[in-house]
Parts: sequence; C-alpha cells; structure tokens
Amino acid sequence: MTAHRIPFADRLNNVETSAIRELFKLLGKPGIISFAGGFPDSAMFDVDGIREASAAALRDEPGAALQYGATEGYGPLREQLAAFMASKGVKGLAPEGLIVTTGSQQALDLIGKTLIGPGDKVIVEGPTFLATIQCFRLYGAQVIAAPVDGDGVKTDRLEQLIAEHKPKFVYLIPTFGNPSGALTTLERRRAVLQMAVKHGTLVVEDDPYGDLYFGEVPPPSLLALSDEVPGSRELLVHCGSLSKVLSPGLRVGWMIGPAELLAKATMCKQFSDAHTSTFAQATAAQYLKAGRMPATLDKVRRVYAERALAMGNALRRELGDAISFVQPQGGLFVWARLTGAGGKPADGNAFAKQAIEQGVAFVPGVPFYASDADPATLRLSFATADVAKIEEGVGRLGRALRT
Amino acid sequence: MTAHRIPFADRLNNVETSAIRELFKLLGKPGIISFAGGFPDSAMFDVDGIREASAAALRDEPGAALQYGATEGYGPLREQLAAFMASKGVKGLAPEGLIVTTGSQQALDLIGKTLIGPGDKVIVEGPTFLATIQCFRLYGAQVIAAPVDGDGVKTDRLEQLIAEHKPKFVYLIPTFGNPSGALTTLERRRAVLQMAVKHGTLVVEDDPYGDLYFGEVPPPSLLALSDEVPGSRELLVHCGSLSKVLSPGLRVGWMIGPAELLAKATMCKQFSDAHTSTFAQATAAQYLKAGRMPATLDKVRRVYAERALAMGNALRRELGDAISFVQPQGGLFVWARLTGAGGKPADGNAFAKQAIEQGVAFVPGVPFYASDADPATLRLSFATADVAKIEEGVGRLGRALRT
Repeated sequence: MTAHRIPFADRLNNVETSAIRELFKLLGKPGIISFAGGFPDSAMFDVDGIREASAAALRDEPGAALQYGATEGYGPLREQLAAFMASKGVKGLAPEGLIVTTGSQQALDLIGKTLIGPGDKVIVEGPTFLATIQCFRLYGAQVIAAPVDGDGVKTDRLEQLIAEHKPKFVYLIPTFGNPSGALTTLERRRAVLQMAVKHGTLVVEDDPYGDLYFGEVPPPSLLALSDEVPGSRELLVHCGSLSKVLSPGLRVGWMIGPAELLAKATMCKQFSDAHTSTFAQATAAQYLKAGRMPATLDKVRRVYAERALAMGNALRRELGDAISFVQPQGGLFVWARLTGAGGKPADGNAFAKQAIEQGVAFVPGVPFYASDADPATLRLSFATADVAKIEEGVGRLGRALRT
Repeated sequence: MTAHRIPFADRLNNVETSAIRELFKLLGKPGIISFAGGFPDSAMFDVDGIREASAAALRDEPGAALQYGATEGYGPLREQLAAFMASKGVKGLAPEGLIVTTGSQQALDLIGKTLIGPGDKVIVEGPTFLATIQCFRLYGAQVIAAPVDGDGVKTDRLEQLIAEHKPKFVYLIPTFGNPSGALTTLERRRAVLQMAVKHGTLVVEDDPYGDLYFGEVPPPSLLALSDEVPGSRELLVHCGSLSKVLSPGLRVGWMIGPAELLAKATMCKQFSDAHTSTFAQATAAQYLKAGRMPATLDKVRRVYAERALAMGNALRRELGDAISFVQPQGGLFVWARLTGAGGKPADGNAFAKQAIEQGVAFVPGVPFYASDADPATLRLSFATADVAKIEEGVGRLGRALRT
C-alpha cells in the first residue's frame, strides 16, 4: 500500500506548533504547581446559576435553545449583551450592533477571514496573545509588534509603525492584556483613537479581562471612549467574552464594529460554524437576565485580587532583585522579567526548565512576541492556585533560581 | 467626517450573498407554509432527555463542562461518538480517531482551511449543500460539479473529472444528500473508494442524514465500507453531526480522517474557536451515555417517513406530470424537477415566486449547483410541516402551477 502524502494548503507553513503546547505536555508531572495556564479557576464558576439558567432556557424556549439560530446570534442574548456593554459605559449600542461569536477566539478568526490577505500587515502589541498572532498568520498576515511598557502600548512608537507599514489594522488588548497584564492609560487610549482617525486605520480592541479589576475601575474601553473622539467609532472593532468572568465552556463571545464589517463577518461565520450554540447562548442570556453577573464579578475580582497580591509579595520576597514586574491591577497574569542580577538566570526558557525540575511551571515570554522577543520575560498566572499554593510555588521558583 | 472604506480581503469576492438568504426574508409573510427550511422539526427534540443530560453534566463534572477544554474535543464525548460510529458498522475507530467540531459546518471549514489554497480544484456533487460550495470558495477553491441521478453521484463521470482536474479532494453526501435526497448505491460506493485509491484522491464523506432512513437500512457509509477496499481508509474523511437527529443548537459535529489531517485540523481549530462548547459537549456525552439515542432515532425516522410519504403522494396527485422526483427513502428533502409538460412552469425560480404568492415556499434548485445548474429543479423539505400542512401546502403548489 502506498502512503499518500496529503496535499496541505500553503497557509499552514506560516504557523509552527505552539511552544506552549509542548510545554503543557510536561504539566502532567505529579505534584507540579502550575502558573502556566491562561484560564480562570473552575472553582469560581457559578455552577448553580448556570444550572438554573440552562433549566430556564429549556423550560421557556426549548425550541429556540435547541434549533438552528441566526448566524448573527440569538436575539435575547444580543439584547442582554448590549445592556451589559451599556453598563460599562458604551453608549448607543443596539442589539443589532453586535454579533455573537464562538468565544472571542472566533471573533479574531472572523476578523482575519474578512480582512487579511496574504502579505497584509497587522500591528499587535509586543508581547500579545499568542493565538492572535497564529490566527492572523494563518490568513497570511505579516505581524509586526509595537512595544509595551507598564502603561500599555507605547503610542509614539505605534504611530511611527502605522505610518511606516500602513497596516490592515492594529490589534490591542488595552486592559490587563494577556500576557503583559498592562493597563493602558487614559491618555494613551485617547492617543490610539486619535491616530486611528488621523491615519484612517482600523483598531481592534480585545477586552476579555476588563471586568477583572482589583481596585480602582480602569479607564473606559476604547469603545466607550470613542464618543470623545469624532470618527473613531467607525474605525473600531471591539471583542468581548464571557470566558474569563463566567465560563469559557459556554464559548460565548461577541464582536462590535462598523455595520459593513459585521455583515461580512456574519457571512463568513455562516460558513465557519453556521452559528454559536443556541443552547449555550440561551443559557447565557438567561444568566444575564437573572441579574447574577454583578455578584459573580464581585466574587472573581475579590479572589483574584487576593491571589495577585500574594503572588506579587512572594515574588518580591523569594526572587528579590532577580526579577522585575509591575504589580497587576487586574486580569490573570504577572508579566515579569529576569534581571540577571548577581549572575542569576536571565533567560526565560532556561529558567522554565529549571522551574519544572523544582515542581513549578510558568510560560516563558518569547512565544508571545510576533518579533523582537525579549528572552528574559515570563508569564505567571495567579488565577488557578490558591494563596497557599502560590506561596509554595513561588518558593519553588526561588529554589530554581538558586540551583 | 470621512467615511473610510474598510479594506476587506480579496477572498470575499469569491462568494455572493446567498440567494436562499434573500428568499428566507420573504418567509415572514403571515400564513405561509414553508417547505424551504433545511432543519429538523423542533417538536422532535427530546427536550426532557437533553435537560436530564445537561443537569447530569453540571452535577457530575461541572468543572470540565464549564472550563476550557481540549481542542480535539471532550474525552467522554469522543468515547461516546466512537461507540456510536461502531454501532453503525465502523470498525477499529478509537476515540482519538475523531475530533469534535462546532457542527459539521466547522468540519467543512477546517477541511477548507487545511487543504484549499487559491486556485485549487475541488469536486462536489451537482447539486450539493450550498454552504459547502461557499465555504470552499472562500478559501479560493474552484468548485467543479459531478452529476447526480437517483442512484447518487454518477461514478463514471466522477472518475473522468478526477482524472481531468486532479482535485485536492472530492466532497460527497452519499446518503440522502442535501438537496438531492439521493441514496448512492452500494456498487457506486465501492467504485468511489476504488477510484480514491487508484488516483490517490482524498474523499470527504459528509453524513448528517444517514441515520434518517425510512425503511430498509441504507448501504454502509463510505467509512464503514472502507475496510473492503485496501488503502481507502487513509484517503477518507468522514463528517458526522448530531444536528439532524438530536439538536442543531448543541452544534456538535465530528470529523474522522487520517491522523496527519486531524492534527492539522486541530491546529487550525485552535485559532478558529479554541474548542467546541464543553457545556454542549458534556451534555451530548451524557445524552449518548444515557442510551436515549435509539429511541430518539426511531421516533424521528417514523415521523419523517410519514411526512415524506404524504408529500410524495400529494405531489403526484396535485402536480401530476408537471413534476418528476424520486420518492425519498430517508433524509429531509424531496428533490424535484419541473417537466414543463403541457406548457406548465419549467423554471424553479419563477415557480418559487408564484408559489409564494399562493402562500407556500420552497427553495429553487439553481443555487445548489457549483456549475451547470438545472433551472428546472427545486428542493422541498417535508421535515417541519405536519401531514395536514403538507397536504395544504402542496395543494397551494398545485394552484401556483395553474396560475
């Protein structure tokens, strides 16, 4: 029998197997404490609330919850999501102004499918969400990184890059971004909107973490702020998600943008998955309608705040001047940099291996850069381990540092 | 303020807005009887069974049901689906031999994403599922149609087309296909597998309707039959779905194929939607585990069989020699052809408009052809109207014929 070679499409050559995926295979090691994940703590899920919402959906609207649905999304969910966005300062958003997506990952995919052709340039933050880089590269994008500091993307450099590369769009996670955890300042947010208008450049704002703030409410999203900058709203795409605040398993995300773009994205979505699970959508709609979200948000904010603080304190105590980071004000991640002080490790990949030896895992920072990677960086999630585990795990990091 | 033009990707030029979508806008007309849908009857859904399954999932495995899951699919569901396929004569399929997709529409999308580059040729049946044609065209495929008769795809012509065009793959719906309703004979199934091996051509078998037979069990799927034809299994991709037999709203489909292809499809799916809703997957797994599927299948087979018979009889009585069709032995559709006998209508589009005037809707056949459309064809679904409505609706078709 001949082994036939499968004639794969050229686009697959643009993407390598994820380095993170390989690392995750090591996490099966017994007793390991993992700061590697990018997911919320399952113990935070409001299982009772979701059970009631699902039962209500099957009681009140079984036909709709189990039948094919509109590609744009389930009407009652679109209404609830529009109200949710209004509660976060977004003005004038009708339910028809958003489409429901299968997680916000699908919003990224639809943005790629509708906008990116081979060779097109896209600017992202360096570092940014790894699956965004890969998603856009699959459509043939040349992905360019704009540098980030503790105040978010460096807007002066971003504007130079826009002028130089004339990208199809700019992709940003301005609020507690993955992996940087950075909070883009109000001033820089305004600057982003102004340069969008000045250069006629589309800006995609990905905002899965904005609700996970620990103290002060963060500045308004680019979408909420767009009212202040005439012309910016029609250049803005906003992606939201219930994954980090309620449940990733529902796969309910949404996308807000210019009507013409939503129409094309809807057409593409028809051929991607027809529509997002109506069963999950009806459940999410009932959950939001029941008014449980504020209490759920209070709880996750409180728990993650406590863990973020514990991790920050432990890192300062155990690793001292060998590591530098900005204490996160929200989100799920500490983004840190090995300083190499006193001959200590300065390479995130090598340190990740030493850490696994000591029974603790994190993700080195290099894969999060579309270009010009900083090899000294690393991402630590404080979301899924409790305070005791965080302290034990960071203790192991300290031991890894000294070996 | 300047209206900025959004710089859409060129691939969108390959797809027109669906003619069917436009038609569906007319269906809001009060009192209309619709044979236009391509969906199962909501009244058939086993709401109690799904409610119990969903409650069991949230009781037994709330963390897994609501958390992120493996891109390949939820383990317990992969096990249940492998067992389901075994019950349909597929030998030697391990749970790892299939991946779960967000409806079988996503399987088509992943096939396109992994295999099709601009200008690649793909052979489909003429007629075939409209969203397949559009999905593949979005990836740049040149879609070529192989003719179909009452016994399925004409294999002699298919082989000529394979030899002539050397397609990336051949896409078939061999069992009660949408829209043709045709049942490919056992002899032709063997011929398809043999020509796959002879020409080294991948064959995609889409099988959402195979369980919906009315009398005799249909011949084995290409996948089940592949054991008989050495070398064919490694050239075969099989797409399945719970949408037509249980609930489309769950969006649970699956894809079986060579390991190398599943690996690439999984990589692409990571960036398409990360994974299919674990909430829906865990619900589907519990449903299958509870052993309710055989009774559900019995019921839907019995109801659709009755409706198919009623529609066939009514069409013969009311439209006589103005229409020709093969009485369906399964699936959801009557595929018919206007004969033009005695000066009666011979154009499906024109007749669809006359029918709407009389208060009955169906879909004209032209959009289902990738090429060489037969304008006399039309698709009538018998799935969603009860017997009385079917008789009334076909009566209106008769009146439309005489106006």
